[in-house]
Amino acid sequence: MEKIKRNERISAMLKILSDAPNKIYTLSYFSEMFGSAKSTISEDIDIAQGILERFALGRLDTVTGAAGGVKYLPAGREELDIRFQNELCMRLSDPDRILPGGYLYMVDVLSHPAIVTRMGEMMAMWFYDKKPDFVITVETKGIPVALMVARSLNVPLMIARRDVRITDGSVVTINYVSGSGQRIQTMSLPKRSVKEGQRALIIDDFMKGGGTARGLIDMMREFSVNVVGIGVVMATREPEHKMVESFRAITVLHGVDEAARRIDVRPAGLA
Amino acid sequence: MEKIKRNERISAMLKILSDAPNKIYTLSYFSEMFGSAKSTISEDIDIAQGILERFALGRLDTVTGAAGGVKYLPAGREELDIRFQNELCMRLSDPDRILPGGYLYMVDVLSHPAIVTRMGEMMAMWFYDKKPDFVITVETKGIPVALMVARSLNVPLMIARRDVRITDGSVVTINYVSGSGQRIQTMSLPKRSVKEGQRALIIDDFMKGGGTARGLIDMMREFSVNVVGIGVVMATREPEHKMVESFRAITVLHGVDEAARRIDVRPAGLA
Repeated sequence: MEKIKRNERISAMLKILSDAPNKIYTLSYFSEMFGSAKSTISEDIDIAQGILERFALGRLDTVTGAAGGVKYLPAGREELDIRFQNELCMRLSDPDRILPGGYLYMVDVLSHPAIVTRMGEMMAMWFYDKKPDFVITVETKGIPVALMVARSLNVPLMIARRDVRITDGSVVTINYVSGSGQRIQTMSLPKRSVKEGQRALIIDDFMKGGGTARGLIDMMREFSVNVVGIGVVMATREPEHKMVESFRAITVLHGVDEAARRIDVRPAGLA
Repeated sequence: MEKIKRNERISAMLKILSDAPNKIYTLSYFSEMFGSAKSTISEDIDIAQGILERFALGRLDTVTGAAGGVKYLPAGREELDIRFQNELCMRLSDPDRILPGGYLYMVDVLSHPAIVTRMGEMMAMWFYDKKPDFVITVETKGIPVALMVARSLNVPLMIARRDVRITDGSVVTINYVSGSGQRIQTMSLPKRSVKEGQRALIIDDFMKGGGTARGLIDMMREFSVNVVGIGVVMATREPEHKMVESFRAITVLHGVDEAARRIDVRPAGLA
């Protein structure tokens, strides 16, 4: 085989690492793939790290120990995150989004691959230190963004369903009060999907009263699972006191004026 | 600014291109980013192309004309696809997946980010030449894989829902006969989500009789949209004649023997 050049090694390595965020690849893996010494691979990693930093494309983390190696994280992009939040708010402020009752049409944004990818990377980095074992959401609209969070953290996604299907096998079902509607709803999760003692990250598209997130927390308690964080795409400013203690949002909805056809949505943290 | 080296340019370029499959970046974009001549960028692209090919990581397509540039596709990985299909079948053959009535538990596979990413890349390349404008699925289990197909094609995802939500705005609702259950079901899609004359790609997790796909075709007709392809993760061998004329599957379920606890699932195309 023709000798593999440094630029080939670094490019291929970065592609492989960034295709699977938070997944650890051993130095031996690359060393065998490229037929290079581990010391050479180490140097390559340093250069790759510099490239990612220079262009704000993420970062590489070296993990020491027996299961050690190197992994990619879509981190260190705070400036881009703020720009993204602003663009998102602009997009969500379009008065054509106003639906009867002051609701917002967001379906297009919530299932646009490029947008949910960015949302997913951003939210994943908020909760990365909490080391969640899985991401959980309730069907349907939050599934795409929850999947992209799970992808960035390299953990499975669990989807709680509002109705039970035969293909779910045995399920745990709970009742909860939907914050916005004050209605009693049910959600179910396959029994075999989650293990006792795991750490859950809740992701959803929208939070008003926080009833759905509360329901997911209660569901996780049934499984003896700890909730380590809650992230939503949009939270309403009112009510200030939600049914959950803490959460993080990408955007905050300050108000929808149906008559004046005005939507006031702002980046969270800058509001 | 310190001069940017070739290995830095190629690595950053590949990262940016492969993060957004099928999205065209102009040569000027990279030329400005790196402060290099377009001829230099062209050479970089050739080298990057060679790297992707050498390690079966995809390919770059150069697009000529006014809107021209370069784009990444997760293509040219047929050998890996076959290996992936085999591994998937092994995984799906685990007798613990057998549910009462001969159903299969597949929820874990269908929402595992790494698995649906591979499925999505593979299916996207099957239908790439058909130039779909969007991907459509019915909630819930097929959403993750449909999103990853949409991501690889750089098109939006549309999700038809079984119940109507206020946040969908005006919807078109149709009735259809679910192939497996012979039950009449309904599905709805926001009116504003799709435009007349567009080209739709249907993606779903499972096909038995083909009733759901048939329903989606009927739904698309309501929108005067052409269906250019149907892809599913698993199709059953029986009934041989489905309610749709043609489709492509990753795996084929030949049978589930509840008593003997045996699942016969094979890679499609190799069965």
